[in-house]
Amino acid sequence: MKLYDGGRAPNPRRVRIFFAEKGVPLPERVPVDIAKREHKSEAFTRLNPSQRLPVLVLDDGTALAETIAICRYIESLHPQPPLFGRDAREQALVEMWNRRIELGLFSAVAAVFRHSHPSMAELETQVPEWAEANRESRAAAFSAART
Amino acid sequence: MKLYDGGRAPNPRRVRIFFAEKGVPLPERVPVDIAKREHKSEAFTRLNPSQRLPVLVLDDGTALAETIAICRYIESLHPQPPLFGRDAREQALVEMWNRRIELGLFSAVAAVFRHSHPSMAELETQVPEWAEANRESRAAAFSAART
Repeated sequence: MKLYDGGRAPNPRRVRIFFAEKGVPLPERVPVDIAKREHKSEAFTRLNPSQRLPVLVLDDGTALAETIAICRYIESLHPQPPLFGRDAREQALVEMWNRRIELGLFSAVAAVFRHSHPSMAELETQVPEWAEANRESRAAAFSAART
Repeated sequence: MKLYDGGRAPNPRRVRIFFAEKGVPLPERVPVDIAKREHKSEAFTRLNPSQRLPVLVLDDGTALAETIAICRYIESLHPQPPLFGRDAREQALVEMWNRRIELGLFSAVAAVFRHSHPSMAELETQVPEWAEANRESRAAAFSAART
């Protein structure tokens, strides 16, 4: 297996954390430099038309994209310790909380960063109004959670 | 089990389609009228603080939110026919494609609808610029897919 990795970006990091928590050594890594737009290159686009990182290439050549798809694959190969739940109810609850965090928090943080940070201007057609709306909705959610 | 259902909204519909494809009868349904903001009520918010539909309430009282969490639970109880893949590789590929459709298509269609349709103005702090950006990016993706 080969892991096409994206350095400091959050999704490559999620996958590396998952390997670490499983106690599974990382496979051979192929660094892809997002700042240099290497994930937009023709060669990488053939691997993952979504132009996102990370991608795990299996020994049979299958290119597996999407963070949670990669994590599930590793969970299947190495069931212990179980990180996606041990039975039907636990597995459903892990899925629910993962979705809540992705849809309710991670996506908003990503929206603020991608649509307002100067370093993202080259990678993203920025919509500053969208960054602002997410900043406000998250601030409201956090102050509600504290009360 | 009880299924808190949301009528024509796409996620409640995804869950009902999943039950139908599995050949599993729908559990008792509790209709929640999104147009009347019933999903924002205090009683429903206690069930699902995210104020989203659908929610499956298990016999032990667990409130299971998030569409795919509910689908996985049904898959665990009724493994045949397998709709999340039969082995490690298939399960990972199903996850990948589900994510690609959700993140690359469904979320954009939802953004256009939620942020530009007059009927959504009461439910959503609309950001018209975000609707427009998603309309354009999807139009570009579709014309690229056709070539």
